[in-house]
Amino acid sequence: MTDTLERLAEVLEARKQADPDSSYVAGLYARGLDTILKKVGEEATETVIAAKGGSSEQLVYETADLWFHTLVMLAHQGLGPAAVLSELERRFGLSGLDEKAARQQK
Amino acid sequence: MTDTLERLAEVLEARKQADPDSSYVAGLYARGLDTILKKVGEEATETVIAAKGGSSEQLVYETADLWFHTLVMLAHQGLGPAAVLSELERRFGLSGLDEKAARQQK
Amino acid sequence: MTDTLERLAEVLEARKQADPDSSYVAGLYARGLDTILKKVGEEATETVIAAKGGSSEQLVYETADLWFHTLVMLAHQGLGPAAVLSELERRFGLSGLDEKAARQQK
Amino acid sequence: MTDTLERLAEVLEARKQADPDSSYVAGLYARGLDTILKKVGEEATETVIAAKGGSSEQLVYETADLWFHTLVMLAHQGLGPAAVLSELERRFGLSGLDEKAARQQK
Repeated sequence: MTDTLERLAEVLEARKQADPDSSYVAGLYARGLDTILKKVGEEATETVIAAKGGSSEQLVYETADLWFHTLVMLAHQGLGPAAVLSELERRFGLSGLDEKAARQQK
Repeated sequence: MTDTLERLAEVLEARKQADPDSSYVAGLYARGLDTILKKVGEEATETVIAAKGGSSEQLVYETADLWFHTLVMLAHQGLGPAAVLSELERRFGLSGLDEKAARQQK
Repeated sequence: MTDTLERLAEVLEARKQADPDSSYVAGLYARGLDTILKKVGEEATETVIAAKGGSSEQLVYETADLWFHTLVMLAHQGLGPAAVLSELERRFGLSGLDEKAARQQK
Repeated sequence: MTDTLERLAEVLEARKQADPDSSYVAGLYARGLDTILKKVGEEATETVIAAKGGSSEQLVYETADLWFHTLVMLAHQGLGPAAVLSELERRFGLSGLDEKAARQQK
């Protein structure tokens, strides 16, 4: 799963140059932040609904939709997944040094 | 950013054995799916609010919270980030083979 | 504003007999609970977005959308606004008797 | 169910003068719009979860929570339920004149 988010972020960055009529993502950028945020909220609800009654496949599908639209949101705001992953690493001590220290404690 | 999600998923898996009183995540597991889903919905709303008025730091922070709670949800349902990332790769032609093909077209 | 919700509930009940292609509400019923709940989640997000940056008119419009889709949800589940209003009255001591008692205390 | 929302709005207006430590609603006002909107998003998710798996009582309870927090939001923004109900009447032709016309058509 290495680098999938990074490569997806590159795709999203490239779509900033695309014709809004030719690309779903370019269309979202053109419609602006509120439209993107509505999609984030919508996909979060669909994720909850899938978790309550859907199959594993549906839950994975809706979670992918949710993550995808948060990536579009980040790209629209000039941000990317690296910042979010750094924040997660910081919280959970998952950086290389922390992990090394954690291993030595074992 | 390589493997952050995978290592975080390992942490979340390990917390299934932890005392619910000693770990936030173990406490979420103990309270069950509905509690986890409420957090997903709550963090989605906080992400939207941060995007509308917060700083970049706040938006990154809330997006990390949202991703984190979707990972807890996936772990609770016996799933993990690899399935979500595979789905994203499938949609966007980001798998190694696809990328190789894409490069050769250039 | 008396009875608006009650009359709207009657309209929603009547739409259960309508052709799904001829009425937005009948179309929602036909598509089922999950579709209705997606609309509830979507309108909640739009309400939050309107509150963060929209005009008063937009906030009223989105709140109306949110209430409306919760009424469709209630109707689909065989419920109506009277039960929700009774619950609110119970919590806030707004029933006639309570209010009478409250007035006498002044 | 007549006037429940109007009387609740009066209660919410009165709480603007209350000590934030003595009243849940006054505490929400003091914490500000974002806190109120987080509650709106949270209660919308809880409504969806209740509709997917809860009893009728739970669905009514969560819908009451959702409506309640939208009323707090409206009050905080200097608005009230009358504006939302007018918007619903406008859309559905539920005003007295419209209804009178509708009856004469029967």
